[in-house]
Amino acid sequence: MADIILVLNAGSSSIKFRAFSVHGTTLDLVLRGQVDGLNTAPRFTAVDSAGQKTAKDWGAGFELDHEGAIEHIAAFLRSHGEGHRLIAVGHRIVHGGQTYSGPVRVTPGVLDELEKLIPLAPLHQPHNLSPIRIIARSRPEIPQVACFDTAFHRSAPEVAQAYALPPSITDKGVRRYGFHGLSYEYIASVLPQIAPAAAAGRTVVAHLGNGSSMCAIVGGKSVASTMGFTAVDGLPMGTRCGNLDPGVILYLMAELKMDKQGIEDLIYRQSGLLGVSGVSSDMRVLLASDEPRARFAIDLYTYRIGRELGSLVAAMQGIDALVLTAGVGENAVAIRERIVRDAAWLGLELDPAANLSGGPCISAASSKVSAWVIPANEELMIGQHTLAAIEATAP
Amino acid sequence: MADIILVLNAGSSSIKFRAFSVHGTTLDLVLRGQVDGLNTAPRFTAVDSAGQKTAKDWGAGFELDHEGAIEHIAAFLRSHGEGHRLIAVGHRIVHGGQTYSGPVRVTPGVLDELEKLIPLAPLHQPHNLSPIRIIARSRPEIPQVACFDTAFHRSAPEVAQAYALPPSITDKGVRRYGFHGLSYEYIASVLPQIAPAAAAGRTVVAHLGNGSSMCAIVGGKSVASTMGFTAVDGLPMGTRCGNLDPGVILYLMAELKMDKQGIEDLIYRQSGLLGVSGVSSDMRVLLASDEPRARFAIDLYTYRIGRELGSLVAAMQGIDALVLTAGVGENAVAIRERIVRDAAWLGLELDPAANLSGGPCISAASSKVSAWVIPANEELMIGQHTLAAIEATAP
Repeated sequence: MADIILVLNAGSSSIKFRAFSVHGTTLDLVLRGQVDGLNTAPRFTAVDSAGQKTAKDWGAGFELDHEGAIEHIAAFLRSHGEGHRLIAVGHRIVHGGQTYSGPVRVTPGVLDELEKLIPLAPLHQPHNLSPIRIIARSRPEIPQVACFDTAFHRSAPEVAQAYALPPSITDKGVRRYGFHGLSYEYIASVLPQIAPAAAAGRTVVAHLGNGSSMCAIVGGKSVASTMGFTAVDGLPMGTRCGNLDPGVILYLMAELKMDKQGIEDLIYRQSGLLGVSGVSSDMRVLLASDEPRARFAIDLYTYRIGRELGSLVAAMQGIDALVLTAGVGENAVAIRERIVRDAAWLGLELDPAANLSGGPCISAASSKVSAWVIPANEELMIGQHTLAAIEATAP
Repeated sequence: MADIILVLNAGSSSIKFRAFSVHGTTLDLVLRGQVDGLNTAPRFTAVDSAGQKTAKDWGAGFELDHEGAIEHIAAFLRSHGEGHRLIAVGHRIVHGGQTYSGPVRVTPGVLDELEKLIPLAPLHQPHNLSPIRIIARSRPEIPQVACFDTAFHRSAPEVAQAYALPPSITDKGVRRYGFHGLSYEYIASVLPQIAPAAAAGRTVVAHLGNGSSMCAIVGGKSVASTMGFTAVDGLPMGTRCGNLDPGVILYLMAELKMDKQGIEDLIYRQSGLLGVSGVSSDMRVLLASDEPRARFAIDLYTYRIGRELGSLVAAMQGIDALVLTAGVGENAVAIRERIVRDAAWLGLELDPAANLSGGPCISAASSKVSAWVIPANEELMIGQHTLAAIEATAP
């Protein structure tokens, strides 16, 4: 009878899940899936470790909410896990504020603290917390662990976390939190096995997915990252603009008479690769397109990665390794090639054949700085944190 | 009988001026001064090339406006320039939009174009243009030349000028214009004499004054800079915040209920060195202070310079020289030392004695990258542009 840890990543319209079986300190993925289209056209999909797929479509108009989705996932787990025992649930929570520099076992007091952070991430935090409340009610005996996208960056020096704003604003929590921390922490946790020299030195990790950011890691700890107070800053992303002069927001308000909602839509959902190209937010579509605007979107994306790389290397005063991860980082051979070639001035030299075959090492033997492709696995990181947290707090 | 070129730099509450005598293609400074406290407590100060000072104080409540100030400056020039003849007026204009990549002789059509740019720089452009209109009315026979803070950066590649926003916004002129262009252009114009190798190569110029920015220059042309759509972006400054997550502006609106005026005050006038330190916007005061917050403001300032340096070097894929200019760059020995030492990873090595004595070269003989202190002189650049423009357009 195996123990099971369930990992949940809940957004406004979807809940993604993974179930891991526990064997000592090792976690094995047994099921993964998601419910999406919550409250509009809900759909359930899952796949087990043998590749067996399950799907259910409730159809448009069916009102399945977060609670209904969690009940469905729980029932699915029971039906697929004869003799399995759910021992804990780990949650991906976008914001841990200044307090949480690591995962925490959820208590009513912790949940209160996390709810106070909603103003810092109003688009995500309420949805991340919703399943915790639902499970605490229906299965109060199950330990729950909150794992934060911001926690890994709390090790960065104060200058890397500060904006040049007065205390009247910064005291309210306006600082550079950084995000994708669970992804970076996972990379940092496996780097000693994959690239021992890089793990001991100065590494930039580029998490290039639908959301994109980069992180400077020295000796396994974050010293700087490209995202800031929110996850809209830094690199251009699928639909987010990344770095933007705050004066642009004032211009949109004063001259184009846009309100907060309109500006939020613009910079979160109508910008980035989609906005610039007018074609798609998907790098695969852009790479296959002949549209000049699609090519320009790729040019801007890789240019900004190169600029941020220089800035992060300055934060470390040098670089020993570059790691590419997440959708684009793991799959877009042409983007990886451009990133590494643009970094030639730092001593990076591509191994084109290794890049084509996906690495993990994609730098030439003569390269002064090594380059790597490592698949992202935030969910495993959450699972491991969850296991460690319940063991640490076991009676 | 010498010809005189008058250079004007008009803001909301002050007009600064310099008068140059023309000798062939050479300009000699004969008078400099300003009227400040316009419409509140106007005061006139001037100093001639022999160091002779003149001052006039109208006192609080006296309503001297831009027109009155210009009349006073003109009368002062006449009284101090026996036998001199005013042949042209050059103006510092903050914004030349996408059109103007160099200075332009002002015609009614040009003035119309420049007024259309007011929404892009509502705090400065109207005041910059005001003297042009006043002089065109009172002295229509005098040629006037507009010189733009943005023009020098129009040579940067499109990826360095673009935000990842959709065409609906970028088509309205929302792009990275960059500023301090007349200062950078001046440095680029004297660099071949001072540091020929740097002039031929890749240089970062840091204009560190009350406003601060940095520019990457390759072969005399701007390829990237830290200021963006407005002059609030990039480095922290005396009272401006510099780089800020656009999500912070949305937070200020939604959670702190701040309006546009309040946000503008915050990021333009209550932030930067002043806001962080709570002590002063003046680097001299901060360097002399024992306040932990003053020290942190300096730490943040130099840290951000280091990060932006890395980003700009990435834009040039390497660096041959670093130039420091403007108030802090020319005078703050301790800040120069920190900037150069933090850039050791790029191959910069300080010559402490040369730094103490003010250079112009402050890097060690063995330094792979050279470092320089060069005094700013935007006004001379405007004077030279003005002379060239009236000669090019002379009948």
